[in-house]
Amino acid sequence: MKKAILIIQCKDQKGIVASVSEFLYSYQGNILEIDQHVDQEIGMFFMRVSWELDTFGLKREEIEPIFEAKVGKKFDMEFELFFNFRKPRMAVFVSKLSHCLIDILSRHYSGQFDVDIPVVISNHADHKKVVEAFGIPFHYFAVDKANRMDVEEKQLELLNQYRTDFVVLARYMQILSEDFIRNYPNKIINIHHSFLPAFVGAKPYHAAYERGVKIIGATAHYVTEELDAGPIIEQEVARVRHHNSPADLVQIGQDVEKVVLSKAIKYHLERKILAYRNKTIIFY
Amino acid sequence: MKKAILIIQCKDQKGIVASVSEFLYSYQGNILEIDQHVDQEIGMFFMRVSWELDTFGLKREEIEPIFEAKVGKKFDMEFELFFNFRKPRMAVFVSKLSHCLIDILSRHYSGQFDVDIPVVISNHADHKKVVEAFGIPFHYFAVDKANRMDVEEKQLELLNQYRTDFVVLARYMQILSEDFIRNYPNKIINIHHSFLPAFVGAKPYHAAYERGVKIIGATAHYVTEELDAGPIIEQEVARVRHHNSPADLVQIGQDVEKVVLSKAIKYHLERKILAYRNKTIIFY
Amino acid sequence: MKKAILIIQCKDQKGIVASVSEFLYSYQGNILEIDQHVDQEIGMFFMRVSWELDTFGLKREEIEPIFEAKVGKKFDMEFELFFNFRKPRMAVFVSKLSHCLIDILSRHYSGQFDVDIPVVISNHADHKKVVEAFGIPFHYFAVDKANRMDVEEKQLELLNQYRTDFVVLARYMQILSEDFIRNYPNKIINIHHSFLPAFVGAKPYHAAYERGVKIIGATAHYVTEELDAGPIIEQEVARVRHHNSPADLVQIGQDVEKVVLSKAIKYHLERKILAYRNKTIIFY
Amino acid sequence: MKKAILIIQCKDQKGIVASVSEFLYSYQGNILEIDQHVDQEIGMFFMRVSWELDTFGLKREEIEPIFEAKVGKKFDMEFELFFNFRKPRMAVFVSKLSHCLIDILSRHYSGQFDVDIPVVISNHADHKKVVEAFGIPFHYFAVDKANRMDVEEKQLELLNQYRTDFVVLARYMQILSEDFIRNYPNKIINIHHSFLPAFVGAKPYHAAYERGVKIIGATAHYVTEELDAGPIIEQEVARVRHHNSPADLVQIGQDVEKVVLSKAIKYHLERKILAYRNKTIIFY
Repeated sequence: MKKAILIIQCKDQKGIVASVSEFLYSYQGNILEIDQHVDQEIGMFFMRVSWELDTFGLKREEIEPIFEAKVGKKFDMEFELFFNFRKPRMAVFVSKLSHCLIDILSRHYSGQFDVDIPVVISNHADHKKVVEAFGIPFHYFAVDKANRMDVEEKQLELLNQYRTDFVVLARYMQILSEDFIRNYPNKIINIHHSFLPAFVGAKPYHAAYERGVKIIGATAHYVTEELDAGPIIEQEVARVRHHNSPADLVQIGQDVEKVVLSKAIKYHLERKILAYRNKTIIFY
Repeated sequence: MKKAILIIQCKDQKGIVASVSEFLYSYQGNILEIDQHVDQEIGMFFMRVSWELDTFGLKREEIEPIFEAKVGKKFDMEFELFFNFRKPRMAVFVSKLSHCLIDILSRHYSGQFDVDIPVVISNHADHKKVVEAFGIPFHYFAVDKANRMDVEEKQLELLNQYRTDFVVLARYMQILSEDFIRNYPNKIINIHHSFLPAFVGAKPYHAAYERGVKIIGATAHYVTEELDAGPIIEQEVARVRHHNSPADLVQIGQDVEKVVLSKAIKYHLERKILAYRNKTIIFY
Repeated sequence: MKKAILIIQCKDQKGIVASVSEFLYSYQGNILEIDQHVDQEIGMFFMRVSWELDTFGLKREEIEPIFEAKVGKKFDMEFELFFNFRKPRMAVFVSKLSHCLIDILSRHYSGQFDVDIPVVISNHADHKKVVEAFGIPFHYFAVDKANRMDVEEKQLELLNQYRTDFVVLARYMQILSEDFIRNYPNKIINIHHSFLPAFVGAKPYHAAYERGVKIIGATAHYVTEELDAGPIIEQEVARVRHHNSPADLVQIGQDVEKVVLSKAIKYHLERKILAYRNKTIIFY
Repeated sequence: MKKAILIIQCKDQKGIVASVSEFLYSYQGNILEIDQHVDQEIGMFFMRVSWELDTFGLKREEIEPIFEAKVGKKFDMEFELFFNFRKPRMAVFVSKLSHCLIDILSRHYSGQFDVDIPVVISNHADHKKVVEAFGIPFHYFAVDKANRMDVEEKQLELLNQYRTDFVVLARYMQILSEDFIRNYPNKIINIHHSFLPAFVGAKPYHAAYERGVKIIGATAHYVTEELDAGPIIEQEVARVRHHNSPADLVQIGQDVEKVVLSKAIKYHLERKILAYRNKTIIFY
């Protein structure tokens, strides 16, 4: 079913839901999903609404301007419009650990992810064969301290060339520059292998082992300029015991990472995430 | 904050959200929460909407008739209106096992449950002292095969006398008659100590032990005439291992029962449950 | 580290642990892990013990006969001896759904599974390319009602030829004959896409949807002659909501299936499972 | 069944299991449970073994000295001996929030905890009536900055007087002095309302809300001189969403706190915890 998805945020006011739903109804829109959230503390209103396109009384290109004129302007809304039949284009970055990468490829292969993957980019050549077996181009960039900024420039070029909508860091062990990140605001999803905010930075499983925690976790978040501090999209945990070595924690954690990262990607693909003030609203 | 809650179900049609939200807006209603669900398979629409009462332009007693006249009639809606400051009255039935009972009393005592508990009813005298320490009347009915129907009659009378809105079976080990159940349609919440539909009926923990399952569970559901087959409200599980005896399973399971039952009660109190066709929609 | 693993079961008697540990100590065995379980109900004793081989005072081929003579005979033990450097050989059967298959291949590829995969067998040709990209032979058998028994015979031959130790049914949608199963007693691991014993048989996600459960699950078990009734190895669950369609349940469930099946395989590979009386003891 | 429980730690050496099990066998000891753990990193050996007392060939008071002479001395062991029929005596400290307190009283009331509770101590008078309804003495101490140390002294006296074995801080909102803590090394269990090491200190639910985490947790740990940094005994988590206020997090978290604290108490009562180097080994 072809559908339109509208994401809205504005100051909280009376009559928003009435105006939006009245607008859709006036063009015979059949609402499929409607979710709203009011952050009482800061007085902000957030909404996601989807409706059937085939029976809708506006042409696709008319929706945005007419909505702005009739509704958006009145409430001073920021809004975005998406169509579910326009597949987003997702680039995947990976280093040596393949579990998240192959999990993503597997979901793409089986049709679980409604996405195009134009390219996989890595600072190691290892996974070229596997990636290409799934029919996806693989680009290898040797990175060292000296060429780091040059490589980023070439990667950005490549992403542009492939018309990339968003980027997934599937255990990519390079820190991206602020410049790079500014090109994809709330459009780079990282998987961090701890239950944030615990164990920020390198070697979180070893830190978890040292502290003697009974549960480990993983966190998917949008990348911001501060390391591991961006808006959290999804988290999950797994139980560990005293006899589990740091190597066991790595293995147990990898299963959590895969599930958490794939859920974050899915929410992003389905336009279910609204990010604001370093938090996310997720209408699942 | 004083609020009104409206629960709606009707055939799915265009314009329902617009009509309801327009209605609220026309009387200066400030929507706090709005949730809807469309069951595509059967073409039914379900909605829960809440709004602030203090600034609303209708008197409490006017809301129902005017909503019916302006909106309900048009869409042939079934709807119910609640006010959050009118506390529901909940009777608790219990037999010998006290864990669910005391958990409920504890939540009531700490103010977690916004409910009145006019009475606890039991077929054992054991917990009289504890119940009364929490300031709640305790009624003991000796039940046997011969007097079962008489007791039920007296219990119904008592429930009426206490103006009971709904009943919680907190491990009440008597099977209620169809007659009794018909007095409280979707208003009797039972906790069954298995992950339904597995292990219906008596001694589910022993059955789970025999089968060698690795996870046990508990299920809160509305009571219907068919045993353990009513609409499921909430379920949760806990992990068990080969060295756990049936007695261990009972203990491990009790923690699950408490959490599951209390969540079901909370959803019910907050008017978040819509039951239809032996299923529940829960807008949490 | 090279290690030996001994799996023991016998009637419960005094002095078993003393005898086994005394035996190992008498040949300078350094115990790494020791786990035991007594089933009080049936009076049976189960044990798993592992120790370092390099410093052990017996040659590999001497261990079994000398242990039998000195310990096994006295307690009338059934026991099995394994060496962790002899990789088991695991054949994977799959039909159309690829998620479990690729998850297994991914774990093998990253070195998480200490196993050889000599062959993948399927009744569909679909996944040939992907399987071969991971360097594993793929055999396709067209199966229909008429040739079913012939195909099984050829499959058994193939398994023999590849010196297969055990078989994993990674969503293989054919029912194996009793004959086939008898060739691999407690050596065929199946993943069933429900929380057994709920929803035995076909289309469990649809049945779960119909019943309106709030949690779905998956079960890995050894295959026995009775469908979906063999000893349960591992189970896990995931939460679902009223707005999830049967198709959503399928997707949510697939993540559970992958984790459950991979854990069962790992326990099997590490010789941590003792199966008896349609149950499993798992020393994890 | 009357049983003895022996907890051992020493440098890892060959022959420990053989010596211990041989010792028990030599006096007709029937081993019920045996668990061991070797921390390879630091070369330490840990063990818990339990056996039937009624058929054991040593008198209770002989076990310790004879074990020391025959086994302990040889391996330079630290060990402790417990008998399951000598109930530990547990004092409970609480402030205003009653959920953990009543959960503990409920488990004691139903016989789930094999413990004596000689006294509940609080810095608020609120829960006197409820505690006494469960038949347990309640002592109220008004605490302020000025009298803090005097109160602690009186509390210690009271604990002595009641022959207290260990202390549970069931949401006790006073920080205990180092002096107090030194009286009960690894014998004070605290419940912290976050998933440590995230959100150490005051108001963790509010901090979790600010950070926008998707999962909150609770941690039971032994109290050491450093705040919220002692050996972790148990942790658990619960999922939260964007629409949950800090007050919701408090409520959701309380259910986790109850379960985590009660598990920690149970492990402690059953002598399943070995604490060393700011970690715990838990033989569950």
